[in-house]
Amino acid sequence: MTITIATAECFTHGIIAREIHAAIQGYHGEFGPKSLNLKWLKDRRGELILLCGMFIPTLSAVKSVLKVNPPQPQKLINGIKVYQEEDDLEVAVLMARAVKEITGADIGIGTTAGIGRGGISIVTDKLTVKTTSDVSADLCSSNSNQLLARQKSGIKKTFMLLESVLRHYEIEKNFKSD
Amino acid sequence: MTITIATAECFTHGIIAREIHAAIQGYHGEFGPKSLNLKWLKDRRGELILLCGMFIPTLSAVKSVLKVNPPQPQKLINGIKVYQEEDDLEVAVLMARAVKEITGADIGIGTTAGIGRGGISIVTDKLTVKTTSDVSADLCSSNSNQLLARQKSGIKKTFMLLESVLRHYEIEKNFKSD
Repeated sequence: MTITIATAECFTHGIIAREIHAAIQGYHGEFGPKSLNLKWLKDRRGELILLCGMFIPTLSAVKSVLKVNPPQPQKLINGIKVYQEEDDLEVAVLMARAVKEITGADIGIGTTAGIGRGGISIVTDKLTVKTTSDVSADLCSSNSNQLLARQKSGIKKTFMLLESVLRHYEIEKNFKSD
Repeated sequence: MTITIATAECFTHGIIAREIHAAIQGYHGEFGPKSLNLKWLKDRRGELILLCGMFIPTLSAVKSVLKVNPPQPQKLINGIKVYQEEDDLEVAVLMARAVKEITGADIGIGTTAGIGRGGISIVTDKLTVKTTSDVSADLCSSNSNQLLARQKSGIKKTFMLLESVLRHYEIEKNFKSD
């Protein structure tokens, strides 16, 4: 069984996709994944495919690439959508669903963060999960360090969530094939 | 005048998009761009928008996301397209054109590398440029260090090319508005 994954990322800058790709391709050193504790991902080499990872900071590209109509952002900075946390959670789900649908992936991942802790969502055919990172920041006023801390938390949280979703997905598939 | 950019990347892993974004957003430190000599990009803060950056390693996502029909790859490894250099050059142009069209960006960037130095392309309405990186590698047999060296060369080469294309684009636009 091969499981396909696709991401549509904002505040995680496409890093989740790159980390998944590097882990399942078995890349090492500076070319390998930077995140810790990805053994569960590396162990699935040959069982997972990262179809694509999109970094989509702008409202315009959310509409043109993902073909969704997200709520109107609180603000736009240089075309970049800035939502409050509640909207980010909703938009993360929209992004995860859209990238899953466009690519035909088994698992879609969406992330976006404006003001607050941001939104993270993972969707499968059966499951839609969403959460926030553990760090609050404001895209309009926070400095690079604060935004970096939120990003790191978001990436870590996404991987924790993905590990659970994968296990759930695999159990369900194995159960079906019995 | 605001100039919009979108990328569809393979061997550069979406890093070009992230670097452009970090530079024009004025991010610093670990959150800032990692590439050297990006003053020309940082100086254009407020004049450039990175609409989106796609990391597309698989043949399936090139077709589903970019809606293009690339030539048949030499090989597929885990769904990842592996071309010879000549085809990579052609596919890089296809990717750059497609992401430009889908997002409505002024400038589209495409990169892909299987066996050889890889292909890099930048397109505007008036211009299509393509080149290779300066480092040869083989996605099927090279180790992480060799693939990393090709990637670094590809990123550096893309930025050299982008600086020229941007200058050309700006001169043309200014000439028109006179």
